[in-house]
Amino acid sequence: MPFGIAIHGGAGTILREKLTSEKEKAIRSALEFAIQTGTKCLQDGETALKAVELAIRTMEDNPLFNAGKGSVFTHQGIIEMDAAIMCGQTLNAGSVAGVRGVKNPITLAKTVLEKSDFIMLSGKGAADFAKQHQLDIEPLEYFFTEDRLQQLKKALKKQKVQLDHSDQEDKYGTVGAVALDQHGNLAAATSTGGMTNKRYGRIGDSPLIGIGTYANNETCAISCTGHGEYFMRSVVAYDIACLMEYKGWSLQQASEHVIFEKLPKIGGSGGVIAIDTQGNIALPFSSKGMYRASQINGEDIHVAIFKDDE
Amino acid sequence: MPFGIAIHGGAGTILREKLTSEKEKAIRSALEFAIQTGTKCLQDGETALKAVELAIRTMEDNPLFNAGKGSVFTHQGIIEMDAAIMCGQTLNAGSVAGVRGVKNPITLAKTVLEKSDFIMLSGKGAADFAKQHQLDIEPLEYFFTEDRLQQLKKALKKQKVQLDHSDQEDKYGTVGAVALDQHGNLAAATSTGGMTNKRYGRIGDSPLIGIGTYANNETCAISCTGHGEYFMRSVVAYDIACLMEYKGWSLQQASEHVIFEKLPKIGGSGGVIAIDTQGNIALPFSSKGMYRASQINGEDIHVAIFKDDE
Repeated sequence: MPFGIAIHGGAGTILREKLTSEKEKAIRSALEFAIQTGTKCLQDGETALKAVELAIRTMEDNPLFNAGKGSVFTHQGIIEMDAAIMCGQTLNAGSVAGVRGVKNPITLAKTVLEKSDFIMLSGKGAADFAKQHQLDIEPLEYFFTEDRLQQLKKALKKQKVQLDHSDQEDKYGTVGAVALDQHGNLAAATSTGGMTNKRYGRIGDSPLIGIGTYANNETCAISCTGHGEYFMRSVVAYDIACLMEYKGWSLQQASEHVIFEKLPKIGGSGGVIAIDTQGNIALPFSSKGMYRASQINGEDIHVAIFKDDE
Repeated sequence: MPFGIAIHGGAGTILREKLTSEKEKAIRSALEFAIQTGTKCLQDGETALKAVELAIRTMEDNPLFNAGKGSVFTHQGIIEMDAAIMCGQTLNAGSVAGVRGVKNPITLAKTVLEKSDFIMLSGKGAADFAKQHQLDIEPLEYFFTEDRLQQLKKALKKQKVQLDHSDQEDKYGTVGAVALDQHGNLAAATSTGGMTNKRYGRIGDSPLIGIGTYANNETCAISCTGHGEYFMRSVVAYDIACLMEYKGWSLQQASEHVIFEKLPKIGGSGGVIAIDTQGNIALPFSSKGMYRASQINGEDIHVAIFKDDE
């Protein structure tokens, strides 16, 4: 049976000339480490659900990405994170929105999937659930990074919300993973700090099942990154699955059609990572760049950042 | 041009023998009033978006329904409401989750659609947004009803969360509306207090675009009611739209397939109300009953509660 994993670290205005070689090296190495972590899990015969969780945890723990430690600041200068995970075999899912202080929101989402009658928890209630299940809690300082604080200050000055990548000087990102395990099961997961300067308890596409995150053994596993509001209006992840199921399109065709045709029509840009049960992988994005990596059957790891990267 | 509106007041274990004739009369009259309010708006040449908002406001203001005044209690004995609205012409949407004290959550969702860069707001932030836009705020007592308090006490005793309709003695419900206006545009809206005894800031399907609420002039407008977690895993509203768009199915075929075939396969029950740009209406449900009503071109109003009602 084929097995494999693909990850993203966010899409946006990522230009080669704006990225120092030192930072580029750090990002490539972090993406590679996430893939290795996921692949090892799959090689050991573990589930795709576990592989996407572990791969994402490595990125949540790394301040280079906009998820867990290193998440962007809200308008009020705090950090509120969203995450979701879905199992393609059972269609079970877990999701959290606007959660504070939880070290690994993706593990919280997985705990919701496994130990709750609900799918989506939010705010203080989600953090209470994390504490009840003895998940790691960190003080707010743990999540803070100087780069993110500067991003917020700039955004406040411009009085606009912004995507983590929309400022060309800042190229961090939402993270996601999709995997196929040796048992033929798919899983998808996404984790993010959302948009810098977000207000009013804004929830983006990442924690929404069928929008930012979706997995179904009948079709594919998807994780999205980009301007969430457009992804929500397009129901991006499930749209790709439906094009496969109802029109018989391939993973590549379906995901490219949604990213390059449908989303731009309403003004949206970004990307997705997708995998199907045959081990096909598609990583289309309409932005300047997308941090991404993939590996099939433990063979070569592909890591890329820019459009012309491969 | 045809125009029309359909509404629901929730689905569940609604049995004729359990409903007093007095209560039945009150419910039928409330459903009729909501329809009349929506139809008048459409006859005046107003938008479908406005018609669904106004129809839902009448039900939010009526303690018979689980939305606005009369919403169910959370585990902690408070009231947290969810709502969403979507315009089929622009695909713009507004949504709120876990909001307290706002008299008409559907108007808050419409205000998010019209006056915010975001689609989905939550918790205290959503209430702050309501205050900034001078929406009506009510003290918590306004929302409280004795019936709901009894429901919570029972649920706490049984230590289970429950759908508003799952207890045969309680037959209140989430509310929704879909409409087609004289300009050929569709809109959908849903508003709810969620599940009695819900915890941890649980968010259900109602405020999720593409799941509990969806509208697109290319296909249809949908509002769902039922056990939200199953609707989320099935991405119900957008699934119906995709069956129409990608397989060419009729509104009736698509909505019946999802409610009677796909949803039961994963253990889910409930119903949807749906309308398309030709003015076709479908109201399939798999539960014992669904409070529902519809009217096309200002002709006869159809009101129904039970399965064998028409």
